[in-house]
Amino acid sequence: MAKLWTPLILVNLKTYQEGTGKRALDLAKKAEKACRETGVCIGLAPQYTDLAPIAESVSIPIFAQHIDPIKPGSNTGHVLAEAVKEAGAIGSIINHSEMRLRLADIDVSITRAKELDLIQVVCTNNARVSVSVAALEPDFVAIEPPELIGTGIPVSKAKPEVITQTVKLVKLVNPKTTILCGAGITKGDDVSAAKKLGTEGILVASGIVKAKNPYQVLLDFAQAANAV
Amino acid sequence: MAKLWTPLILVNLKTYQEGTGKRALDLAKKAEKACRETGVCIGLAPQYTDLAPIAESVSIPIFAQHIDPIKPGSNTGHVLAEAVKEAGAIGSIINHSEMRLRLADIDVSITRAKELDLIQVVCTNNARVSVSVAALEPDFVAIEPPELIGTGIPVSKAKPEVITQTVKLVKLVNPKTTILCGAGITKGDDVSAAKKLGTEGILVASGIVKAKNPYQVLLDFAQAANAV
Amino acid sequence: MAKLWTPLILVNLKTYQEGTGKRALDLAKKAEKACRETGVCIGLAPQYTDLAPIAESVSIPIFAQHIDPIKPGSNTGHVLAEAVKEAGAIGSIINHSEMRLRLADIDVSITRAKELDLIQVVCTNNARVSVSVAALEPDFVAIEPPELIGTGIPVSKAKPEVITQTVKLVKLVNPKTTILCGAGITKGDDVSAAKKLGTEGILVASGIVKAKNPYQVLLDFAQAANAV
Amino acid sequence: MAKLWTPLILVNLKTYQEGTGKRALDLAKKAEKACRETGVCIGLAPQYTDLAPIAESVSIPIFAQHIDPIKPGSNTGHVLAEAVKEAGAIGSIINHSEMRLRLADIDVSITRAKELDLIQVVCTNNARVSVSVAALEPDFVAIEPPELIGTGIPVSKAKPEVITQTVKLVKLVNPKTTILCGAGITKGDDVSAAKKLGTEGILVASGIVKAKNPYQVLLDFAQAANAV
Repeated sequence: MAKLWTPLILVNLKTYQEGTGKRALDLAKKAEKACRETGVCIGLAPQYTDLAPIAESVSIPIFAQHIDPIKPGSNTGHVLAEAVKEAGAIGSIINHSEMRLRLADIDVSITRAKELDLIQVVCTNNARVSVSVAALEPDFVAIEPPELIGTGIPVSKAKPEVITQTVKLVKLVNPKTTILCGAGITKGDDVSAAKKLGTEGILVASGIVKAKNPYQVLLDFAQAANAV
Repeated sequence: MAKLWTPLILVNLKTYQEGTGKRALDLAKKAEKACRETGVCIGLAPQYTDLAPIAESVSIPIFAQHIDPIKPGSNTGHVLAEAVKEAGAIGSIINHSEMRLRLADIDVSITRAKELDLIQVVCTNNARVSVSVAALEPDFVAIEPPELIGTGIPVSKAKPEVITQTVKLVKLVNPKTTILCGAGITKGDDVSAAKKLGTEGILVASGIVKAKNPYQVLLDFAQAANAV
Repeated sequence: MAKLWTPLILVNLKTYQEGTGKRALDLAKKAEKACRETGVCIGLAPQYTDLAPIAESVSIPIFAQHIDPIKPGSNTGHVLAEAVKEAGAIGSIINHSEMRLRLADIDVSITRAKELDLIQVVCTNNARVSVSVAALEPDFVAIEPPELIGTGIPVSKAKPEVITQTVKLVKLVNPKTTILCGAGITKGDDVSAAKKLGTEGILVASGIVKAKNPYQVLLDFAQAANAV
Repeated sequence: MAKLWTPLILVNLKTYQEGTGKRALDLAKKAEKACRETGVCIGLAPQYTDLAPIAESVSIPIFAQHIDPIKPGSNTGHVLAEAVKEAGAIGSIINHSEMRLRLADIDVSITRAKELDLIQVVCTNNARVSVSVAALEPDFVAIEPPELIGTGIPVSKAKPEVITQTVKLVKLVNPKTTILCGAGITKGDDVSAAKKLGTEGILVASGIVKAKNPYQVLLDFAQAANAV
């Protein structure tokens, strides 16, 4: 299984056409190459169906995009933590803005992930909610103001105070939580800015998956992450 | 890709421990063997993560347990029809009682599946709802009174009139729809009974996945399906 | 209790500020006046909190905007059919595009409403879904292409074929269902057009609630409904 | 508007038949009488439809059972904070175990309630989630292990450590939050026990609404609350 370290660049493939099936595998190989070249940890969160094929083909850390707050049993159509683990994922995004969960379910999802040694990256939308999530003691909080997702306007520029507040308050409640910065990241500069504000990596989607040259952008991101 | 014919035995692996990862693949191989031995079509609906590994290992028809009513795009954590297709599924269960959908979303899910030539098996809970679904023109309606699921009491015994009514009324609205019978099926007799009531196959889960000897039960089911 | 007849003008107050509390009551009195003046049946669907105060103040038919598919019991925060009935509602909208329900829940909601002699107005988004709903035998189907809601572009102009198809197909499946036309209606002409396409009334919201002079627009609508 | 003080006995009428319409009003009058007799604050959370009739008939504090995370606008069937306020509620339960909300929606609901000076009573299921909610700075946290709701087994007996942990940890994160204890409360003793564990009141439903003599039980509760 792949190891995880910071700074972390976590690439969410969503259900983009450019991030499905063979194209997801292709992206994974580029990410692996950029990772080797720069020494920066690049993780990938493909669709459930692509977890196994990708996890066995590359050695970078692979995440699920979501797990359901369930145990093995009668849950047709749901996503079982044990299943994503056996498919090769080392962790999961939880509570992404496109997959918001009820609070009690975030709690159960984190607990289930911990039982299986899956890393939890829990998404939040503002500083207050970030603190709320930090109280549940996940490994990572990824702060992503939803109104900036996919805009190309980085939160570090549009709302730097959201990041600095999150960093400050989360550390008070739970100093072990690692903070990622998401939404609107498209350039190496955005990655440096996120780091300067106190986060230890980024959560990115279209900025890589929809890029003309994803490998080049990954390199750019990774070098920026290293430079700060 | 595997072909599909009736009578159909469709095995839903849910998120059972016995139906996850390697154990899912093992079940798939038993299903394939029983299929070859009897000539009866046995389909399998594993978890999303197991679709690709199973589809490339066996030649029986593989289904997703659910697809979301979405197009490629920003839908973190959702299940894209294109993704299950590329993973090797030839169809999907839709609206299982453990994954009920809003009506407008059943409509979109069926449409999306048709666009990709994925077979649609839409679950329903009574005769009236079966007719309602038949109006959306899916390939299959699987009638499963939810109160019988997992009980070992077959609907053909507990509520045969639900099946006969469904068969009668669905054929009026949409004669092309094929009807499966689900819930509580554990023995070959239950399969014969379902066929005698006018259905063209069964949807089964724990009856196979939790059986001590799934292969033997599958053989029993398939022989019963052949005999009627 | 108020009686209901066609052509019906059903006004959905949503959660508009102009349709909350005293302003809802004020609108109800205007609707009652327009109803008396024209002889056209004008129904009102205020928020739950306004049902009782309005129902005891005016004698036009009052509807809930939604009921939950539940029986009396432990359902904190849910909307009980018995409660809206006792508050004075004679029926309920079900499955509005802003409150879409799972198919099995539409079925239960219709059944629960029938048990209590509450009139059911079930919203749909296209002809196919309208037929699907008609199979559940509600009193009314209100066809409202969601993309036109609140636009001021009437469905009778933008997509007349959706209405004529719905009328044709619904009557085949269930000739007792009365069809209303919704989305984008702002002028008397739109009401006439809806009637000419074969519907027996309209479902309207912002066209009345957000009008500068709701009484005048109601008169205009009612006269148009009468004229055809 | 009624004032609120502690110890607080908050009675959730759910959608019980015994707590709907005239019977809800009758219960409200009994609560008012018990309140006057003992000087203990008794609040009532009836269904939405009963808010206005009850709020204008009694002078005890009235709560909604839920508010939606919305602003005035196009939200058919939803519950607007402005509407429950205008109907006479002075606050709302939020995130009851029968109406769990997504975390970001709890945050918005609390914010909306604060904008309108509505008191927020946010339900939680364990100590960890209580702390998580406390970070959102609501007026009240009501800790209710869902598995005890309606059982008649008080949390103070079955799981006293859940209460003491909640009290301890919530006070660290947000000392202004008042803590209520819920689930399984049927006797005065349970109320005293809850107070002794550090809470400042109780959230109760069937223990009052389903009691043979609700007035007597309310008196019993209130006297116990006073005695400690």
